[in-house]
Amino acid sequence: MKRLFQIFLYLCFRKLLMARNIEFNEEVAIQKAMNVFWEKGYYATSMRDLTDAMKINSSSLYNTIGDKHQLFLKCIDHYIEVKKKNLTERIIEGKSPLRILEDFLHDSVTAIANDSNPCMVVKTAFEVAQKDKTVQLLLQKDTTFTHSFLVDLIEKAVASKEMNIHTTPAILADFLISSFSGWYEMYLINKDPQQIKSIAGYIIKQILK
Amino acid sequence: MKRLFQIFLYLCFRKLLMARNIEFNEEVAIQKAMNVFWEKGYYATSMRDLTDAMKINSSSLYNTIGDKHQLFLKCIDHYIEVKKKNLTERIIEGKSPLRILEDFLHDSVTAIANDSNPCMVVKTAFEVAQKDKTVQLLLQKDTTFTHSFLVDLIEKAVASKEMNIHTTPAILADFLISSFSGWYEMYLINKDPQQIKSIAGYIIKQILK
Repeated sequence: MKRLFQIFLYLCFRKLLMARNIEFNEEVAIQKAMNVFWEKGYYATSMRDLTDAMKINSSSLYNTIGDKHQLFLKCIDHYIEVKKKNLTERIIEGKSPLRILEDFLHDSVTAIANDSNPCMVVKTAFEVAQKDKTVQLLLQKDTTFTHSFLVDLIEKAVASKEMNIHTTPAILADFLISSFSGWYEMYLINKDPQQIKSIAGYIIKQILK
Repeated sequence: MKRLFQIFLYLCFRKLLMARNIEFNEEVAIQKAMNVFWEKGYYATSMRDLTDAMKINSSSLYNTIGDKHQLFLKCIDHYIEVKKKNLTERIIEGKSPLRILEDFLHDSVTAIANDSNPCMVVKTAFEVAQKDKTVQLLLQKDTTFTHSFLVDLIEKAVASKEMNIHTTPAILADFLISSFSGWYEMYLINKDPQQIKSIAGYIIKQILK
C-alpha cells in the first residue's frame, strides 16, 4: 500500500514538473521557431530547421505542440500578440492622438528602411493566407486590431480638431494599413531606404494637411 | 561516303526539327510552369508539379531549360514581359495621359478585387526576393519599367494642366506602385472587394484633386 502511495505521489509530482517544464520550454521554443518561419517563410522551413532552432527532437515537438502547421499557427499568434502589445503601449497619457499616430507612422518607416526582413504578417499574407483559411483568419484578427487602434486615434484627432480628414476614419485606417505592405515590397525590390522615406513622407503630408 | 552524307543530312535535319520542337514547347511549357509557380509560390512548387503541368519528363526539363530555379527565372521574366506589353498597349493615340492613368488605376482595382491570386511580382517579392539577388534584380527591372511608364504619364498630364500634383512625378509614381501591394494584401486578408475599391477611390481622389 505504502509502495502504491509512493508511486502515486511520484506520478503526480512528475506530471506537475513536466507541465511546468513544457510550459517554460514552449514559450521560448515558439519564439525561436517564429524567428525561423519569419526568416525563411513557411514552405522553405523544414522540420529539421525548427527542431534545431527549438533544441528539441521531433517527437517532443509533436507531443507538445503538434505538427509544422500547428506550430506555425502558434508562431503567427505569438507574433500578433507582440505587435498588439506594441500598439497598446503607444497609448501614453498626455500624448495627443495625432502625435501617437505620427510617431507610429514614422516608426514604421524607420523599421522598414532599417530591416531587410518584412513584417511576418505581410509575408504570410502573400505566401500562405491565399490557400489557408485558418491562417487568413488569424491575420484578419491582427488587421482588425490595428484598424481599431488607428480608427480610434483618427476619430480622437478629428474630434479635438488636430486633424482634418478627407474621408472616413475607417477608409483612412485601411489606407494606412495597406500602405505598409507597399513600403515593404518597395524596399525588398529596390533596397533604397530614401525611397520608402519619400513615399511615406508624401502620405503623411497628404493625410495631415 | 553516301552513308556518311546520309548520316550528316539526318543529323542536320534532326537538329533543325529538335530546335523547332524545343522552341515551340518551351514557350508553351514556360507559360504552364508560370501558372503553377504563380498559384503555389516558389517553394511549395515541386519538380513533379512542374513536369506534370509542362507535360515533359524531368530530364527533358534539365536538358532544355535547366533546374527549378532557372525555370522560375524564365517564368518571372515571361510574366514581366506580358505585364510590359499590357502597359505599352495602354498608350493609345488620342487618349489623354490622365485618362490612361485613371484607366490603369481603375483596371488594377478591378483585377485585384476579382481575382484571388495576387500579382506574381508582388508575391515573389515577399517570398523569394529577400534571399535571391537574381530574382530581386528581375523584379527591379519590372518596377523600373512601370515607374517610367507612370512618370511619363504624370509629367505629360501635369504639362497639359490636366493634373496638379503635390510632389514630384517620381515620388507619386513610387507611391502608386507601392499602393498596389497594399491592395493585394488587404484583399488576401479580408476578401472584401468593397474595401479595396474604397481605399483606391480615396487614393485616386487624393492624387487627382
